[in-house]
Amino acid sequence: MNETICALATAPGGAIGIIRVSGPHAFDAVSSICSVRCASVTPNTVHFTRIVEHDAMLQHQTTIDEALITIFRAPHSYTGEDSVEISCHGSRYILNKVLELLVQNGCRMAHPGEFTQRAYLNGKLDLSQAEAVADLIASTNRATHRMAMSQLRGGISTELAALREQLLRLTSLLELELDFSDHEDLEFADRTELLTLAQKIDAHITRLANSFHTGNALKNGIPVAIVGAPNVGKSTLLNALLGEERAIVSDIQGTTRDTIEDTIQLNDITFRFIDTAGIRHTDDKVEQMGIQRTYAAIDKAHIVLWLIDKTPTPSELTDLQQRCDGKTLITVWNKSDLTPSSPVCCDSVATLIPISAKFAIGLDTLRQHLLDAAPHATADDIIVTNARHYEALTRAHTHLQRVLDGLHHKLSGDLLSEDLRLTIDTLAEITGGQITPTEVLENIFKNFCVGK
Amino acid sequence: MNETICALATAPGGAIGIIRVSGPHAFDAVSSICSVRCASVTPNTVHFTRIVEHDAMLQHQTTIDEALITIFRAPHSYTGEDSVEISCHGSRYILNKVLELLVQNGCRMAHPGEFTQRAYLNGKLDLSQAEAVADLIASTNRATHRMAMSQLRGGISTELAALREQLLRLTSLLELELDFSDHEDLEFADRTELLTLAQKIDAHITRLANSFHTGNALKNGIPVAIVGAPNVGKSTLLNALLGEERAIVSDIQGTTRDTIEDTIQLNDITFRFIDTAGIRHTDDKVEQMGIQRTYAAIDKAHIVLWLIDKTPTPSELTDLQQRCDGKTLITVWNKSDLTPSSPVCCDSVATLIPISAKFAIGLDTLRQHLLDAAPHATADDIIVTNARHYEALTRAHTHLQRVLDGLHHKLSGDLLSEDLRLTIDTLAEITGGQITPTEVLENIFKNFCVGK
Repeated sequence: MNETICALATAPGGAIGIIRVSGPHAFDAVSSICSVRCASVTPNTVHFTRIVEHDAMLQHQTTIDEALITIFRAPHSYTGEDSVEISCHGSRYILNKVLELLVQNGCRMAHPGEFTQRAYLNGKLDLSQAEAVADLIASTNRATHRMAMSQLRGGISTELAALREQLLRLTSLLELELDFSDHEDLEFADRTELLTLAQKIDAHITRLANSFHTGNALKNGIPVAIVGAPNVGKSTLLNALLGEERAIVSDIQGTTRDTIEDTIQLNDITFRFIDTAGIRHTDDKVEQMGIQRTYAAIDKAHIVLWLIDKTPTPSELTDLQQRCDGKTLITVWNKSDLTPSSPVCCDSVATLIPISAKFAIGLDTLRQHLLDAAPHATADDIIVTNARHYEALTRAHTHLQRVLDGLHHKLSGDLLSEDLRLTIDTLAEITGGQITPTEVLENIFKNFCVGK
Repeated sequence: MNETICALATAPGGAIGIIRVSGPHAFDAVSSICSVRCASVTPNTVHFTRIVEHDAMLQHQTTIDEALITIFRAPHSYTGEDSVEISCHGSRYILNKVLELLVQNGCRMAHPGEFTQRAYLNGKLDLSQAEAVADLIASTNRATHRMAMSQLRGGISTELAALREQLLRLTSLLELELDFSDHEDLEFADRTELLTLAQKIDAHITRLANSFHTGNALKNGIPVAIVGAPNVGKSTLLNALLGEERAIVSDIQGTTRDTIEDTIQLNDITFRFIDTAGIRHTDDKVEQMGIQRTYAAIDKAHIVLWLIDKTPTPSELTDLQQRCDGKTLITVWNKSDLTPSSPVCCDSVATLIPISAKFAIGLDTLRQHLLDAAPHATADDIIVTNARHYEALTRAHTHLQRVLDGLHHKLSGDLLSEDLRLTIDTLAEITGGQITPTEVLENIFKNFCVGK
């Protein structure tokens, strides 16, 4: 933190490149390569200046760029330190040269995420908010954006603060019970209240932990398996769904959307078709997907699209329904344009969606069913998207389970307090309220981009 | 110019993305998506704000980003118009969304180079300076950077202003001659002075036009041909030179240099090996380069590296020297470690550089010879790098040649004035001092990046 760091904060290759400088000597370092006396100007102002390189030997100076520099004074900056942002022309030569000059004037190149790490260490963000910054930058659709923004704006932090409050209340009740332990008539009532409170907290922690599955699916795409007999039209359906997706081009010039292999976006939710190697690029006539492979795909899926073109046998039906336990099974009647009579399925397959993959008939209805089957998060839901948070929540749940067991077995309060303390500490790891070991911090920030 | 334009000014994918907004409604448009009243704040200040999307139907608002916005008030901005720069998190979703919101609030997406085009139209830059902006952004080494920066800072503009001054002086002298045309004794002296002045101006124009060859070579890499008999070691030499280059990695973290196929950088000057398809990737033993191909490579080269391993025949020598007329011929004695006696060349091949391509002996000396043979530009040289400028200078030279012819043939001043006017107008095209046709402007700015 005594060092002043610098880095390119934008991707190379644009019209503009932004170089960030932060630390105790940020003003000195920048002042020595331009004509703005950073320490004397009003903070939060922007200044046009020439960035120059002085050649002491030749006693002349070279203009490296005409740039805009913005001054932020501690603690009113992103990092909480004195900071400068230099907005240069986006030439690689210029950006390298400016960084080189800054290093010559006492800065060092920042590590990935080091600006955000400093913001955390200076108390500008808690740890879960710092992590949300990386997620926000990586967000590619409304769902991932909303989850990251909620976390950045303290959604999870608030939730955890409430949990901590309740856990502290539990602790104080336990102490109260200790105080009154000689009053036999009081103890029983307290125990019930303690148990109820502990169960309520545990249910809350479990709900948060479980939201990770939703969060993870929304973040990485909801896994969908397309299954069905050979020749039923799986690859045609896949290509129809993907093909229309490919044709969608962002209407904003110069920002065409990257198409990620085998995913579609519906209402800003990503659906990811899994194990498609077996069904893609195959001619419908020879389309094959081994039974083991089908089962593996179903196991990984949240949603199973079962494609049929005739009434399935009762054993086929039972088999698939058993395999899809806990998942959403959508039964799709393909080639419905060829046969007038609908296949007959038992009542448990509530809806049969008639489509023609070949002629793109019924695909909108199918898409709506996919959307309905997707996990939904309202704007107010707190969703855990971070594996580190999930892991901490799971551990907190384990500690709290021991407290619950102890309460059931009427262990005395002092025996329960250790596990209660562990529960509180484990939750505190998420926001970094406890002192966080260096290696944990390094792990968190190493996946950030440089310059953030 | 009545429209307000917006665009992403940074490359997608970094920690930060900058969106630029410029035009009469820039303040209104930005104010309607955040809480800063742009029109009321002090110009050149930066403000932290939330970018929000209002949903009228659902009567709620979504936070799209926490961003920094910088306000520039006309005429003190890059474009000369009211402008705002929005510094967002570099998420593609966020950047698209902010652009979408701006478009919904009355902006339109900017065309490539439109911000710079507006800067030109508002008199913030002349046309050659505007073009220099694109060159500056594209600059990848010291030489290209220096030429672009010189042009941006008005190097060529100043030079052309001086030429215009001289041409106007020529015009006025011509008028003076007309006034005194009945004084026979005065005329002769004036004619001499006129001719001397016109020749001086023409020499200046020619020098500028010729600098384009240097500028072009420095911008695109100085073309070098490696020629020689089969088995003499051409591919080994090429790979040795390129291979050492490939190993050079920029010492600034995260900014490793892109290696462009078959070019090397020496002292920030790019050398481009031409027609290497014939000699690359070939095993030395079967290395072949047809005679026609060799001649073609020489024709395109500025520098010819002639690789020999024994004394060439007189006809070989004469043939190559004739082909290399006007180019720099560097004769390189390869496999010098194998034979103790130097090949004998006639005196005209001044230096023979002994090397071993295989063992990388003598390569430093060879590189120094390449550098010595490269066109050099001092910091004060004005170098034309732009084909449009070169073309205009060439036309100006043609017009001025007619004036010179006219002076030789003692044509009267009024007959010369048309060509003089054309010379002046043609030079004015470079800086855009004359009214520039829309299609010329479109041509100039279409190769810019969006957002500049």
